Amino acid sequence: MGLAEERRTDPGERLWGDRVGRGVEELPTPALLLDLDVARANAALMGKRFRSLPASLRPHVKAHKCAELARMQLEHGAIGVTTATVAEAEAMASAGVGDVLIANEVVGTAIDRLTDVAASTRLTVAADDESTFEDLGRRASAAGVELGVLIEVDVGMGRGGARSVDEAMRLARVASEMRGIELRGLMGYEGHCASEPDTELRARETRAAMERLTEVAVRCGAEGLPAGVVSAGATGTYETTGSYPGVTEVQAGTYVLMDLFHEGLAPEFSFALTVATTAISRHGDLVVFDAGRKAIGNDLLPPRLAEGAGELAFIHEEHAGFRFPDGSPYRVGDRASLLPGYAPTTVNLFGAFHVVESGRVVDLWPVLARH
Amino acid sequence: MGLAEERRTDPGERLWGDRVGRGVEELPTPALLLDLDVARANAALMGKRFRSLPASLRPHVKAHKCAELARMQLEHGAIGVTTATVAEAEAMASAGVGDVLIANEVVGTAIDRLTDVAASTRLTVAADDESTFEDLGRRASAAGVELGVLIEVDVGMGRGGARSVDEAMRLARVASEMRGIELRGLMGYEGHCASEPDTELRARETRAAMERLTEVAVRCGAEGLPAGVVSAGATGTYETTGSYPGVTEVQAGTYVLMDLFHEGLAPEFSFALTVATTAISRHGDLVVFDAGRKAIGNDLLPPRLAEGAGELAFIHEEHAGFRFPDGSPYRVGDRASLLPGYAPTTVNLFGAFHVVESGRVVDLWPVLARH
Repeated sequence: MGLAEERRTDPGERLWGDRVGRGVEELPTPALLLDLDVARANAALMGKRFRSLPASLRPHVKAHKCAELARMQLEHGAIGVTTATVAEAEAMASAGVGDVLIANEVVGTAIDRLTDVAASTRLTVAADDESTFEDLGRRASAAGVELGVLIEVDVGMGRGGARSVDEAMRLARVASEMRGIELRGLMGYEGHCASEPDTELRARETRAAMERLTEVAVRCGAEGLPAGVVSAGATGTYETTGSYPGVTEVQAGTYVLMDLFHEGLAPEFSFALTVATTAISRHGDLVVFDAGRKAIGNDLLPPRLAEGAGELAFIHEEHAGFRFPDGSPYRVGDRASLLPGYAPTTVNLFGAFHVVESGRVVDLWPVLARH
Repeated sequence: MGLAEERRTDPGERLWGDRVGRGVEELPTPALLLDLDVARANAALMGKRFRSLPASLRPHVKAHKCAELARMQLEHGAIGVTTATVAEAEAMASAGVGDVLIANEVVGTAIDRLTDVAASTRLTVAADDESTFEDLGRRASAAGVELGVLIEVDVGMGRGGARSVDEAMRLARVASEMRGIELRGLMGYEGHCASEPDTELRARETRAAMERLTEVAVRCGAEGLPAGVVSAGATGTYETTGSYPGVTEVQAGTYVLMDLFHEGLAPEFSFALTVATTAISRHGDLVVFDAGRKAIGNDLLPPRLAEGAGELAFIHEEHAGFRFPDGSPYRVGDRASLLPGYAPTTVNLFGAFHVVESGRVVDLWPVLARH
């Protein structure tokens, strides 16, 4: 039996079809819920913000991996999307998104998938190593596609990217002369600033990071190297990056879903994402719910009950235990909603969003490009 | 477009088909690899161990969610499987497994799915709350299926289960008289012992836990209540639980895959599971690989490079950074293998195992019952 065939016999898959139209109380738990009104309001609010910022919005879809949410963000003024992986870029191109940035290095055999994507959408990819330019250029030429490149500059996070202005300039010069690729500009991700809770300090650190990035852009301009695109930013820093002189686009994406990690960083957005769960066991002040680390992205912050009460006692693989010192409002069988600590790793655990309006499932939106 | 239809258009899915026959070096990364020879050796070794233990083996399939691996464990003497969720039980029943224990409480609307499973396999479910017995019994009767129940006893972990012998006895009495369900025995999970690194201490704590569990079994016997099944155990405790007088079956499952968490707990088994990754960026002594928290279960222990060298500097969503103070053996584009900290949450991130023999993909085994 082939994989596709065997997957179709996975009985879990068969259950999805009849969920549209049901009340959320009827769904098997744990279930990923998207409040459609809230997601739309978040998308609209960010669209409105960017109408008064000099930079454009290019939302990172790693947060939701969802064609419908990408389209919603595009309808509210986004100029294209950002992805972390080639698989996400494939999914977005396949969904008709016309402009995709892979904000990550792509090397080796994955380059062939890259050129396939570039055949159907305007594609740009980050790069930070001279040894990959020739490979990118040769294979883009062979495939007869146009492939844009942004030089990644390390703006202080210490992950990918050129470590100095000189290194970045050297890479930009090589890229600009490489046949088969088109140097389009620069990228820098200020991940080391994006979680700083103090608003003032976060803005100051973010400006320092953007100074490093735009310094390279200025040098490129002086040398006549193309640096029309300067891409950076996240939900926690979008106002600072989006208004920083020289930054042309901002990669904020999670704002459309929100989570506890982003709650204090961007309080103007509201929780659209929850995980529905059921109380399956209760002893003393402890209630055990049927959603654990296989249903909740627990990597940055633990989840919280949306209803407020209850202190997290533990989160295991398939269980979350909450204590209610003042008495539990939950009996065995009761439903609850969990607010994820981190949306991107939560969404990645589910095959689809249950899209909810007025307590009813109105649609199922697939989560694409999971491994 | 329906969900099933849209999923088939997910371009990532199309890539799976042509992977069989390829060398692992050609696979898109990150990729989940299963070394078939090692998995078979692990399954055979555990089968051999249980031939000299009084208890039987009922492997927990939450670790692998894979029909083929369950069948391999059954071929080596396992009497059935254990699952954590109804979806896993559905998948196992659908794959032809004839005896399934859901080692977890099942309540509310999920009970209807339970009775569907019970129609095609011998099914037993854990229970720890009187209020659910009637629901279980009524719906099993209505469906005309036989549904077995084990009373869960808290043996010290403090998650699910009756908190005292008296509470367990009360539950056993009610269950034994409930129409529609068949009391089959007891279950207790010594999760609080299963990670103790000191072998002696772990064995002592595990025996204390089994004493609590078997005390209830003895009381049941004295009252004429059926307690033929006494189920417990994990990969880290299987020798102690499997030889403890009165324990009839052991739920160890991860031994077939192994991971860093279990390495010291059960060193007689070998690593069958790795995640293939590619070096995508390198600066100074730092090499960044393309496998992060969306590809590696990082919840109990961080991953390690199978090749040994390198210190983990960070693990982000799509990246793992390793430092090589003595010089990196990896250039950009090089492949590496990561040993996951925890197998169950790693497997859960992938759609299928690439089954590997002599460096070549010989099959794809789906990971079932992901959310």
